[in-house]
Amino acid sequence: MSYNLLKGKKGIIFGALNDQSIAWKVAERAVEEGATITLSNTPMAIRMGEINTLGDKLNASVIPADATSVEDLTNVFKVSMEKLGGQIDFVLHSIGMSPNVRKKRTYDDLDYGMLGKTLDISAISFHKMIQSAKKLNAISEYGSIVALSYVAAQRTFYGYNDMADAKALLESIARSFGYIYGREHNVRINTISQSPTFTTAGSGVKGIDKLYDFANRMSPLGNASADECANYCIVMFSDLTRKITMQNLYHDGGFSSVGMSLRAMATYEKGLDEYKDENGNIIYG
Amino acid sequence: MSYNLLKGKKGIIFGALNDQSIAWKVAERAVEEGATITLSNTPMAIRMGEINTLGDKLNASVIPADATSVEDLTNVFKVSMEKLGGQIDFVLHSIGMSPNVRKKRTYDDLDYGMLGKTLDISAISFHKMIQSAKKLNAISEYGSIVALSYVAAQRTFYGYNDMADAKALLESIARSFGYIYGREHNVRINTISQSPTFTTAGSGVKGIDKLYDFANRMSPLGNASADECANYCIVMFSDLTRKITMQNLYHDGGFSSVGMSLRAMATYEKGLDEYKDENGNIIYG
Amino acid sequence: MSYNLLKGKKGIIFGALNDQSIAWKVAERAVEEGATITLSNTPMAIRMGEINTLGDKLNASVIPADATSVEDLTNVFKVSMEKLGGQIDFVLHSIGMSPNVRKKRTYDDLDYGMLGKTLDISAISFHKMIQSAKKLNAISEYGSIVALSYVAAQRTFYGYNDMADAKALLESIARSFGYIYGREHNVRINTISQSPTFTTAGSGVKGIDKLYDFANRMSPLGNASADECANYCIVMFSDLTRKITMQNLYHDGGFSSVGMSLRAMATYEKGLDEYKDENGNIIYG
Amino acid sequence: MSYNLLKGKKGIIFGALNDQSIAWKVAERAVEEGATITLSNTPMAIRMGEINTLGDKLNASVIPADATSVEDLTNVFKVSMEKLGGQIDFVLHSIGMSPNVRKKRTYDDLDYGMLGKTLDISAISFHKMIQSAKKLNAISEYGSIVALSYVAAQRTFYGYNDMADAKALLESIARSFGYIYGREHNVRINTISQSPTFTTAGSGVKGIDKLYDFANRMSPLGNASADECANYCIVMFSDLTRKITMQNLYHDGGFSSVGMSLRAMATYEKGLDEYKDENGNIIYG
Repeated sequence: MSYNLLKGKKGIIFGALNDQSIAWKVAERAVEEGATITLSNTPMAIRMGEINTLGDKLNASVIPADATSVEDLTNVFKVSMEKLGGQIDFVLHSIGMSPNVRKKRTYDDLDYGMLGKTLDISAISFHKMIQSAKKLNAISEYGSIVALSYVAAQRTFYGYNDMADAKALLESIARSFGYIYGREHNVRINTISQSPTFTTAGSGVKGIDKLYDFANRMSPLGNASADECANYCIVMFSDLTRKITMQNLYHDGGFSSVGMSLRAMATYEKGLDEYKDENGNIIYG
Repeated sequence: MSYNLLKGKKGIIFGALNDQSIAWKVAERAVEEGATITLSNTPMAIRMGEINTLGDKLNASVIPADATSVEDLTNVFKVSMEKLGGQIDFVLHSIGMSPNVRKKRTYDDLDYGMLGKTLDISAISFHKMIQSAKKLNAISEYGSIVALSYVAAQRTFYGYNDMADAKALLESIARSFGYIYGREHNVRINTISQSPTFTTAGSGVKGIDKLYDFANRMSPLGNASADECANYCIVMFSDLTRKITMQNLYHDGGFSSVGMSLRAMATYEKGLDEYKDENGNIIYG
Repeated sequence: MSYNLLKGKKGIIFGALNDQSIAWKVAERAVEEGATITLSNTPMAIRMGEINTLGDKLNASVIPADATSVEDLTNVFKVSMEKLGGQIDFVLHSIGMSPNVRKKRTYDDLDYGMLGKTLDISAISFHKMIQSAKKLNAISEYGSIVALSYVAAQRTFYGYNDMADAKALLESIARSFGYIYGREHNVRINTISQSPTFTTAGSGVKGIDKLYDFANRMSPLGNASADECANYCIVMFSDLTRKITMQNLYHDGGFSSVGMSLRAMATYEKGLDEYKDENGNIIYG
Repeated sequence: MSYNLLKGKKGIIFGALNDQSIAWKVAERAVEEGATITLSNTPMAIRMGEINTLGDKLNASVIPADATSVEDLTNVFKVSMEKLGGQIDFVLHSIGMSPNVRKKRTYDDLDYGMLGKTLDISAISFHKMIQSAKKLNAISEYGSIVALSYVAAQRTFYGYNDMADAKALLESIARSFGYIYGREHNVRINTISQSPTFTTAGSGVKGIDKLYDFANRMSPLGNASADECANYCIVMFSDLTRKITMQNLYHDGGFSSVGMSLRAMATYEKGLDEYKDENGNIIYG
């Protein structure tokens, strides 16, 4: 299904690894909607994943880059402008990784070198990307930049660890740079706060399957899928959302606005059963 | 320009008065995008405004209704389903009026009968609309309902008066009903928080021209226009945003995320000049 | 334990019913901290509850008032100023009731007359109270007005029904009037968003015991008690918080900032067990 | 004036430089309220500022520490426990600095080494402080930790630059660690979002005097002073706020909840005058 929403537009998609990746789906949908694109990921991810297959399929160059390297990012924009023949209309940042999570360091036992990397990879990379682009004047007037975030930036989820702080920083960067790039070139910068998603990245989060279930039952529309997220990204890249900027946009089936749903409570209540006395009263403690 | 985003969809647009109305633009754009629609407004507004002209142009029935009357609203949904041939896919609520504002009652001298009317017309009408529709099972699965709001629901703007409270109530109703209609029929309910706009309704707000200017200079992308708002409504009615619900979505050029912009401060500073002593220091007080 | 935080101050406490009421605890603590006060509730509540006992104990006049009656509220302020000998320094609004909840009308089957009453009793009464006071110039410079709210104003809790909308309206009124009363008389107006509490009012909410348990396990500090809430009210009435206004202040053990806690998930997970297949994988559906 | 709110409590105050510092006022007030404390700042700040004078006056040891050094911070807690004779009941983090701001690097030309320092000094230092303390079990049950923040964490203020991102990160750390320290030891962690204040640190922000004036006229109660902020910190350290955690608390005279005030608009309007045509209509553009 295509609406030609991105007809003639040029884009760069950062962070596709395999066909479960949100970035992968966004790349596919962007091309379906008429865009030409380039893809970027780290050399390691390119080797480990299947992004070259995607590039072949979509006729998209794959440009390796360490997202923490200004030099690499600058190169991605330069090469993309050459390949695509002009300024870039949209960019997706779908990048996040926490060495502390990987190494199972708890939040009260963080390694600060690793925290620095979490922030650099997952948040500061977004600033580097935009600053590099702006210095090259690589983004067209009314261009659109989107990064993927998570509600842990607002509320603590046990086990999400220093990625919560990284997402808070990411969203702040979207606001701070959105102000500047907006006033100067009408470029809009937003984050999409997506439901928990079964991707290779998501599966690294502790207890993700239970969290996924909880979020699903809390959300009146259920969790948003990667495919649905891709649709939303397309909308945010299109000319129909030109005045939306500096926002964090929840794409989560309603989760962020639910305190407790009947469905989630039904499950919770079953778990409560064993905390009840013979009269059915809950035993607190 | 059309993308066929609403091809085959059926909608109801409440609140178009004349060609400055946001609802008017939404109606036009919805039809451009392939929808068939009906229009509704009060009998008085139909007589005073030009909605019949719009109806003729768009081949859309105009169904009179007092939005505070459950009976009238029920009738709008019944007639619309007959005219359009089935369940409704999208609804726009663009209705708001404060007798207190009209009668220049200040917020510390409200007439409570008028406050009741402000809330009934501007907010409770949204609940009545949705409840009436749900009782008739008038909204299709994955349908989309949108109401227009304003950032005064979050922050106080002098002179906006009891409309601020009405908008806060409106946004709460969107959340409360979004939960129920979502879990039962996957219907999404959201509010769009729009820039100040020069409409007949907007022009009733005290000092709207100065507020418009301030918002415009604060917003990196400038104020969002009625046409741009219509585009966003189309997006929210389309199948590309199916998992967004219970949200208040800012469509405001960035205003809501700006504390102070350079452009707004430049103007403010000029106003400050006369509060400065001979050395250029601001005299506070 | 007393710090003399309210020494010499005069206050009015609305909404004490019995010794489980938050307002009851606030009244006791206010007097402990050196204040003199009056108490108010509806004639019905005065008959049904034990507020006269409290009045005797605290040497506080009990002034009957229907909080939806401007006349009654005006009388409360007049009589209180007489009894206490001057302008009022602090006011607590702890009033809320939903006929729809009592009559078990679901949110998609509201009676609109009852909704009007819910809003009038639970939210508009706050406006009436403040407007009445301001017209009498009954609040002293740097006075403090507090109303009790609940996080349902921001997120939907199934079963909380139209009280959620009432709380959203209540919080908006605090902002709107806080602006005006602040600039004119330095009076601050805030809402305290309290944990679910086992009071007579709270026990009317559907499934309150399960919700209480969930909130308790989600909150790192556990639910805040009525006694603790009283302490916070004292603080907000004192001279130590003179520049806080137009805020909604969470007093909830951290609940509002938690997405999922380990303790709540442990219970939830037990409930999940029966949705697992033989390999321990969650069966979604 | 003292209420003995902190009688017998032990605290550490980080960040006092001179008698304009908020931390300085907090230290004075804490001692007035019955606490014994230690003070900490960088060796450089101790030499340049007047903290030793404060230490003498309050009978408080001054312990030098680079707040980015885990070793130094660990030492502060160890020495403080020795000097004060036991676990610490409250901690103030009033630390922030941006080399990018100092070197006048604009936000679209950040030096990333400097950004790393901004984040490390202004935000990660808070994590290091708490983690160091927790490893030493240095904070007593029901202890209270506060950091000072600014509304730039939520909304962009031109010229505030990468400090906005640092404050967003700081507030996220308060939430993330508040969850863990709360559930384990009932320690609460909050940030206070303070009005712009004329301190040595504040005066480094571009256009601070104009911003100060704007905030002052926007806020119905005017800007909150350093003295008033100290009072609020005392309250948050006291036993009267034991169930408040993971919150960002605005102490700003109402600024954060105001969209536009009459007083600010009066000044703005004067600045607008020269953008008006002969009929008094605003010329947009």
